[in-house]
Amino acid sequence: MGSNLARNLASRDGNTVAVFNRSPERTRTLVSEHPEAGFVASETYDDFVASLAKPRTAIIMVQAGRGTDAVIAELAARFEPGDIIVDGGNANFHDTIRREAELKPTGIHFVGMGVSGGEEGALNGPSIMPGGTAESYETLGPILKTIAAKAPEDGEPCVTHVGTDGAGHFVKMVHNGIEYADMQLIAEAYDLIRHGTGKSPAEIADIFAAWNTTELESYLIEITAEVLRQVDAATGEPLVDVILDQAGAKGTGAWTVQNALDLGVPVSGIAEAVFARSLSSKPAQRAAAQALPGPAVAWKADDADVFIDEVRRALYASKIIAYSQGFDEIIAGAEQFGWNIDKGEIAKIWRAGCIIRARFLNRIADAYADDPELVALVVAPYFRDAVAEAEGAWRKVVATAALAGIPTPAFSSSLAYYDGLRAKRLPAALIQGQRDFFGAHTYKRVDKDGVFHTLWSGDRSEIETEPSWH
Amino acid sequence: MGSNLARNLASRDGNTVAVFNRSPERTRTLVSEHPEAGFVASETYDDFVASLAKPRTAIIMVQAGRGTDAVIAELAARFEPGDIIVDGGNANFHDTIRREAELKPTGIHFVGMGVSGGEEGALNGPSIMPGGTAESYETLGPILKTIAAKAPEDGEPCVTHVGTDGAGHFVKMVHNGIEYADMQLIAEAYDLIRHGTGKSPAEIADIFAAWNTTELESYLIEITAEVLRQVDAATGEPLVDVILDQAGAKGTGAWTVQNALDLGVPVSGIAEAVFARSLSSKPAQRAAAQALPGPAVAWKADDADVFIDEVRRALYASKIIAYSQGFDEIIAGAEQFGWNIDKGEIAKIWRAGCIIRARFLNRIADAYADDPELVALVVAPYFRDAVAEAEGAWRKVVATAALAGIPTPAFSSSLAYYDGLRAKRLPAALIQGQRDFFGAHTYKRVDKDGVFHTLWSGDRSEIETEPSWH
Repeated sequence: MGSNLARNLASRDGNTVAVFNRSPERTRTLVSEHPEAGFVASETYDDFVASLAKPRTAIIMVQAGRGTDAVIAELAARFEPGDIIVDGGNANFHDTIRREAELKPTGIHFVGMGVSGGEEGALNGPSIMPGGTAESYETLGPILKTIAAKAPEDGEPCVTHVGTDGAGHFVKMVHNGIEYADMQLIAEAYDLIRHGTGKSPAEIADIFAAWNTTELESYLIEITAEVLRQVDAATGEPLVDVILDQAGAKGTGAWTVQNALDLGVPVSGIAEAVFARSLSSKPAQRAAAQALPGPAVAWKADDADVFIDEVRRALYASKIIAYSQGFDEIIAGAEQFGWNIDKGEIAKIWRAGCIIRARFLNRIADAYADDPELVALVVAPYFRDAVAEAEGAWRKVVATAALAGIPTPAFSSSLAYYDGLRAKRLPAALIQGQRDFFGAHTYKRVDKDGVFHTLWSGDRSEIETEPSWH
Repeated sequence: MGSNLARNLASRDGNTVAVFNRSPERTRTLVSEHPEAGFVASETYDDFVASLAKPRTAIIMVQAGRGTDAVIAELAARFEPGDIIVDGGNANFHDTIRREAELKPTGIHFVGMGVSGGEEGALNGPSIMPGGTAESYETLGPILKTIAAKAPEDGEPCVTHVGTDGAGHFVKMVHNGIEYADMQLIAEAYDLIRHGTGKSPAEIADIFAAWNTTELESYLIEITAEVLRQVDAATGEPLVDVILDQAGAKGTGAWTVQNALDLGVPVSGIAEAVFARSLSSKPAQRAAAQALPGPAVAWKADDADVFIDEVRRALYASKIIAYSQGFDEIIAGAEQFGWNIDKGEIAKIWRAGCIIRARFLNRIADAYADDPELVALVVAPYFRDAVAEAEGAWRKVVATAALAGIPTPAFSSSLAYYDGLRAKRLPAALIQGQRDFFGAHTYKRVDKDGVFHTLWSGDRSEIETEPSWH
């Protein structure tokens, strides 16, 4: 990915790119394989740093963790105030905040930069999410704009100054969390159609290809059709039936949920997606669970076309919830860490280059343009109407899955979240009553201010009190 | 809670208890209010430590965090090898592991001890989950056995040596996570019955009281009846209708989920419970979401009694899933941190004293006694049969809630988990295909060993390769 990003940079007019790898052999291979790039190769940190024009800008692309700290230390020992060190790996944003603070006294700018789009995106145009100081972005922004993907609608480069210190890596993390939810929702839609209609993967590929001309149009829907259409050469079976059904994960989905828990933001759709992957990767439990009973008769839809259309609408509604939860986390993170994040700009820079690029990101950008203080994406007029249109189908699909024994954790969770959000009253009141009963945790009342406790083990009268820390 | 635990200790034959608080005033109040306890009061650390018999044992009960470290430092400076410092607060088990390691070179035993049961439990008999060395438990165990709750079935004290270093606090954390799930499930059951039958809280109190004579018998079901029966003196309304429906949380539920994510264990029921509380506490979002559409007609059950019985069975099945997920986390934590945890013993020491005490914990203890290597609680014969009996009702209730617009995140999530676990094939295979497409993440095959990648942007042939770290 680092070499592809370097090639992308080198291909732009007027750029000369210096490259360095701890293994000189790798550098030599890169340079010899890509003479067109005109790379300036270095085999030592001293030579590398000496080869850079001032103010120097170095982009680090190494596996996240200690390796990053080591490279930063080598560069920082040689850089001068005003120079810029960019970490383009998938760093934990807490590390980015720490690294930025550690370098600040030296006058060197440290920029944590999220890059999405995989190896191909790095070469042809990724979506780029840089954090760091506004000053560093004055130098970095024009360079990044040349290499970023361009939105199909208006040609705008998919890069913006997300916010200070760890903001870029934070937003990249949430991007990945949303990606987990989106992939799980697509997988559930496929599974429902397969079970409910008996259609083959190739037939379902056609359905996804058709969906890709609707409001669902997105990279993930597009490649789902490609994957489902693929036939395994060795067996003649659909590839998806030959792939072991145990999904892997690299950790950013889990980080998204862990940080949402710290921030008190319900990201249930993302959490269910992460858990669905970990459940799939428990072969011993799954083997033992084959003895567990399910519905006696395998369910089939009465009308396949009607059902498929209901699944499409349920998918769109669930997807809106996943993005709504993701943007909630961005808003909460911005507040917690003091970042001034323009939510509409984030939606815009995800329109091309990255894995979750999708037509409906324009709608998200519009929603935040119309109302920058929007409290939840799903209540914006466009999304409210979209969900209203989908709602009946969404409910039917979730109910059908429950009755049919088809696992749809992300569809179900998204609907439960939606119904929780719009509920006039929630049974959370009972939970507060229970907590007050067993732990004197106190409660508030609907009809007056203050904090109250019922003397449950006394005469059961109510007293006004202080909030409890128990 | 600390003073209640001290009173509990002092009330046992032969015990003399020394007490100390940073605020001498508090110590004086405790001693004067409870002359029967025969407390030995100290106003300085020196006096306190001097008043203890050797090997010294001190139990710290302060709010978790830095305060704990400060008290440990004061005691450690005065203690000798073989003495025991016990932290009975709700510490994060990672802190407990660190503290134990820091004290080890001094020869002082550090014991992280989970205590459940609230203030009343502390006084009359809590469930106690100590970690630390086996050697420290030789001294501590006999003392703790005198103050612990006694199981109603066999009189066994609710305390066991959970495992070394942080094992006690880890298991207490999971206990609290299960408690979150249990409370949320009960709240959903109440909400379903309220909406589906129109019964009053007092009438639903009777239902819970009746359920408390079934396999659902538990402290939380019992106190739910008490809370629902309570009438607010000021308004004459049911108290549950007067309590603000925004649930608070103290963090151990979130920790349970965050650590499960680190361990790769799907604890979706606990996660949904934590998220349901955080959703409830977003008044601005909930107010804006009042405009979101739901079902046009408020749903009512055709036959209230039938529906109530279905809810009872759905609750029991969902509860089995919540406990199964919680014990999965204990098993994974034990493996990760090198603890030898007896799962059956954990179920036994939760039978009394603690918030989740319940009749069915005997069944869990039996399941692990029958098969100590049980891969998942839900596949044990008793639980498999219990779920089989409940399954049809469970599906109907989840489907009904989805159609009726009643949020049941924990019921729905538990069922989706169950169906995921027992699925022959999961659409995780499609997710692996997508990941291989956009990130060359590779996949495994069902029919042979090895790691494979399809050349998606090439001729789409398959190559055998190395696992990717991308």
